[in-house]
Amino acid sequence: MLLEAVYHRPRLNWSYAYDHETIHLRLRAKKGDLTEVFAWAGDKYAWDATKELIPMTLFTSDAMFDYWECSSVPKHRRLKYGFLLQKGHERIWMTESDFQTERPTNPNRLFEFPYINRGDVFIPPAWVKDAIFYQIFPERFANGDPSRNPAHVQPWGETPTPENFFGGDLQGVIDHLDHLSELGITGIYFTPIFTATTNHKYDTEDYMSVDPHFGDVETLKKLVDACHKRGIRVLLDAVFNHSGRTFAPFVDVLEKGEASRYKDWFHIREFPLQVVDSVPTYDAFAFEPLMPKLNTENPEVKAYLLKVAEYWITEAHIDGWRLDVANEVDHEFWRDFRKVVKRANPDAYILGEIWHESAPWLEGDKFDAVMNYPFTDAVLDFFIYGTLDAESFANAIGKQLSRYPLQASEVAFNLLDSHDTPRLLTLAEGDKNKQKLASLFQFTFMGTPCIYYGDEIGMDGEGDPGCRKCMEWNPENQDLDLFSYYRKLIEIRSSHPALRTGSFTFLEAGRHGSKLAYERRLGDDIILVLVNTEETAQTFRLDVEDRNWENLFTGEALRADRSKLSIKLPAYGYAVLKALL
Amino acid sequence: MLLEAVYHRPRLNWSYAYDHETIHLRLRAKKGDLTEVFAWAGDKYAWDATKELIPMTLFTSDAMFDYWECSSVPKHRRLKYGFLLQKGHERIWMTESDFQTERPTNPNRLFEFPYINRGDVFIPPAWVKDAIFYQIFPERFANGDPSRNPAHVQPWGETPTPENFFGGDLQGVIDHLDHLSELGITGIYFTPIFTATTNHKYDTEDYMSVDPHFGDVETLKKLVDACHKRGIRVLLDAVFNHSGRTFAPFVDVLEKGEASRYKDWFHIREFPLQVVDSVPTYDAFAFEPLMPKLNTENPEVKAYLLKVAEYWITEAHIDGWRLDVANEVDHEFWRDFRKVVKRANPDAYILGEIWHESAPWLEGDKFDAVMNYPFTDAVLDFFIYGTLDAESFANAIGKQLSRYPLQASEVAFNLLDSHDTPRLLTLAEGDKNKQKLASLFQFTFMGTPCIYYGDEIGMDGEGDPGCRKCMEWNPENQDLDLFSYYRKLIEIRSSHPALRTGSFTFLEAGRHGSKLAYERRLGDDIILVLVNTEETAQTFRLDVEDRNWENLFTGEALRADRSKLSIKLPAYGYAVLKALL
Repeated sequence: MLLEAVYHRPRLNWSYAYDHETIHLRLRAKKGDLTEVFAWAGDKYAWDATKELIPMTLFTSDAMFDYWECSSVPKHRRLKYGFLLQKGHERIWMTESDFQTERPTNPNRLFEFPYINRGDVFIPPAWVKDAIFYQIFPERFANGDPSRNPAHVQPWGETPTPENFFGGDLQGVIDHLDHLSELGITGIYFTPIFTATTNHKYDTEDYMSVDPHFGDVETLKKLVDACHKRGIRVLLDAVFNHSGRTFAPFVDVLEKGEASRYKDWFHIREFPLQVVDSVPTYDAFAFEPLMPKLNTENPEVKAYLLKVAEYWITEAHIDGWRLDVANEVDHEFWRDFRKVVKRANPDAYILGEIWHESAPWLEGDKFDAVMNYPFTDAVLDFFIYGTLDAESFANAIGKQLSRYPLQASEVAFNLLDSHDTPRLLTLAEGDKNKQKLASLFQFTFMGTPCIYYGDEIGMDGEGDPGCRKCMEWNPENQDLDLFSYYRKLIEIRSSHPALRTGSFTFLEAGRHGSKLAYERRLGDDIILVLVNTEETAQTFRLDVEDRNWENLFTGEALRADRSKLSIKLPAYGYAVLKALL
Repeated sequence: MLLEAVYHRPRLNWSYAYDHETIHLRLRAKKGDLTEVFAWAGDKYAWDATKELIPMTLFTSDAMFDYWECSSVPKHRRLKYGFLLQKGHERIWMTESDFQTERPTNPNRLFEFPYINRGDVFIPPAWVKDAIFYQIFPERFANGDPSRNPAHVQPWGETPTPENFFGGDLQGVIDHLDHLSELGITGIYFTPIFTATTNHKYDTEDYMSVDPHFGDVETLKKLVDACHKRGIRVLLDAVFNHSGRTFAPFVDVLEKGEASRYKDWFHIREFPLQVVDSVPTYDAFAFEPLMPKLNTENPEVKAYLLKVAEYWITEAHIDGWRLDVANEVDHEFWRDFRKVVKRANPDAYILGEIWHESAPWLEGDKFDAVMNYPFTDAVLDFFIYGTLDAESFANAIGKQLSRYPLQASEVAFNLLDSHDTPRLLTLAEGDKNKQKLASLFQFTFMGTPCIYYGDEIGMDGEGDPGCRKCMEWNPENQDLDLFSYYRKLIEIRSSHPALRTGSFTFLEAGRHGSKLAYERRLGDDIILVLVNTEETAQTFRLDVEDRNWENLFTGEALRADRSKLSIKLPAYGYAVLKALL
């Protein structure tokens, strides 16, 4: 037994309340090392009467480790626990302080889950598990009100530059909601729409007004209302880490220097405000002088931004916020933000932009989800770049599942591209087969999928500004086959709860392999997904239950033969099979 | 290189801001496995210009692992980082997602410390590092006002039972402050003093009044004032997890049942309130019907308790709170508690009662310290029970240092006994040599020492009620030699900053060993502590700097001979040596 590999530490992904009654415990061990694992658990105030061994199951693995898990519903909402590790006949007990060969008799030195306090439990809004998101960059989606065009607007479809404008606006979105409904979208995430000078609007000038080039508060309300009527929820982008250079308080500091009553609204390292060797004398987003970092610890700033957060929920009935550069803002700010937002709408969704592992933001007091770029990396590495084999991909996915509480994995915001990355099709060097397979995984995995506008009709584009080009509305230039494929993916996901909240298990993911198979399961709803990422046909032989299966793309029926399912998939072929009762 | 043993995950003890400018990074590896470790760190927005290798030093070890640490003061308060691990010529790079043999060129997949937001930094009050605490159980310390005696008071010094009373009160404490000043005490932690029915007062009846058997608000103010004049700070016990059975809101629920407007102040599982098979139908502390658990998530309850927390700070000028059963109360409550308390007095001290590892409560948003019972366990195991050898003791202490940010270790509340445990002398089976050595370690280690009333004059006692007997005030029955010893310990600690905030390094702690030697160092202030826990004399030979040394207990001068210090210590002998400049 390699005890150095064994890890457990209360909280985060290791011990957490899944709901108001249920505690999940997890333990890490060297891959393949342990044969059986138990939690040794009970009520510390009634240890002798309640102590029991709870079997743990292997719920995921990565390249180096296995992760074991069990669930417990302790009557008095508290649990004292250790672990029993077995490797064949070898038995080791783990306490908070040590490994030992004897069964611990003194519960005091065990780990503890002190009490399930309901308010501390992380419960994301239930609807998020079922949502299909679509990301819109408003300046480039559709021009619905030419009267609002900025000066020097470029003809729709010309080459985007960092500075040019095309006249996209909120009316344009309203005009094209049929496109989203037809696809099956149930949530839109808008990049910023408040008044700002740039085309991306990440340099906010006025948090309380819709950018006049996009519309006004009435247009927004009309848009949200139209979305709600179609069962589409609306997420706006809260750029609270920094303002724009034209934000009135910052203009005041620029004008009055140290005499400005707003000087503590920012992180000014030195007056006068200037840029020396490309570095501003005030903290900024990155080193961008146009985006001075807001002092979110200043009570005035905080009150102002929280008022903004509340206003757009109560006034325009938006359904939540995406938080720009969320990891650089203080945790205390986000805690108060959550309170304000959830008070305004308990069902509101809070999505942080964090590119790295984010467990400390997903404990229930801050965000509901983060933009899951580590997921993006793994999917791109396997399906698009081919730098990972199937085994390594499964390990990367396994590691991610291990890092978060289950409720976080269930609503992880799984995107494959965005306004901050090259488009998926471009990363795939134009190979739509690869785009389809990557998206298939996205739509059949745990977490909330998001499509970047236009991916569904075959748009390509390099990184900013290439990925921000105008939406293609001419049906002749749209890939309607691809559109149908995405619509089918959404339909399949939406009609099978197992794909949203079922368990996830790899069935095939071999070393040097390019065949991937996995199961999603929720009660009787069992779905198998098979993917061949090779340029040649490959045959899958899977151990499955003795059932009839239906291919959800083709309607074809299959039968497992003595619990073996054998399917040949063509180059870049895929199948989604549903177990028939 | 045993990569399975390597661990780092941002936050908690692994990456944290030590102050408003400084980030500490730590990495765990198999004991003895790595020869050199570096952080590979820079500003993510200026990676190429700022990336650097920062050497890490081995700062502590436990039985299985080494812990490496480095410190960084990044100019723009943010750090992207990985690690370079070396074992001889073998070099492995660690990123957030993987181990790899090539130097990572893409900073995006490294770990991240996004930004030092000042308000998120954990900064305990500075005075706590220097404090010497004394715990008083008021009913048993001194009777200064017989007019306040409860009915049926027992003669002072009779055998304590769970129910009897002896008439100790606040005036008694005021009368005996000379005793504390003479000893060198700078802080008193009182077990509860608010109106309650029991002698221990953990069943609060009225949080807004001093128990009439102890005094009144004026007595408390007089006491706090007298303490402050002597440089002694005062900590009261906040019993907010549960109330007493006679607390008016609970009485209302008892009387009116479901019709009570206070029914949601508690966690009532079933009406009527009753006790079935020793288990109340409402949540309680443990299963104690006299102590109904408060619903601290109820805004009314929370507002009431926070008002209590603030009131005693503003009205009686107490210096902080010790929090009873702190781990069973919701985290959100403690976050708001911290805000209220620190607003009332930014220098107030918040000490949680948590018996297990407590890093999640020591991140800056909740407590300043916890009662460090894992420290107690290790010290007792080695110095008192002899169940650990010196090496295992050093490993247990090393593990504790590894588990917390440095600022938490600096103010850990290090106690050896309390009203909840047998007394130290009793655990030592009356052997004062053992008591002295355990206390020597307590007073020369990192963290705030606390003496349980009477230990300093040789009081013994089994667990509750034995440990709660009346303070011995007759000098003839006091061990004055022991008192002088404690006074000396305090004087030594108080006059040497190295003992409070210096680094801590074991110099000798051998397998099967009973000799312990360690160094505390802060700049030029270098202290060596040597302890012989054996019943026979032992000689220490230590590699030290070529200096003259002074034995702080005896005044004796010693000289290292070619960097070797040789000292023979008698049975249970000890020495505290100070390097002379």
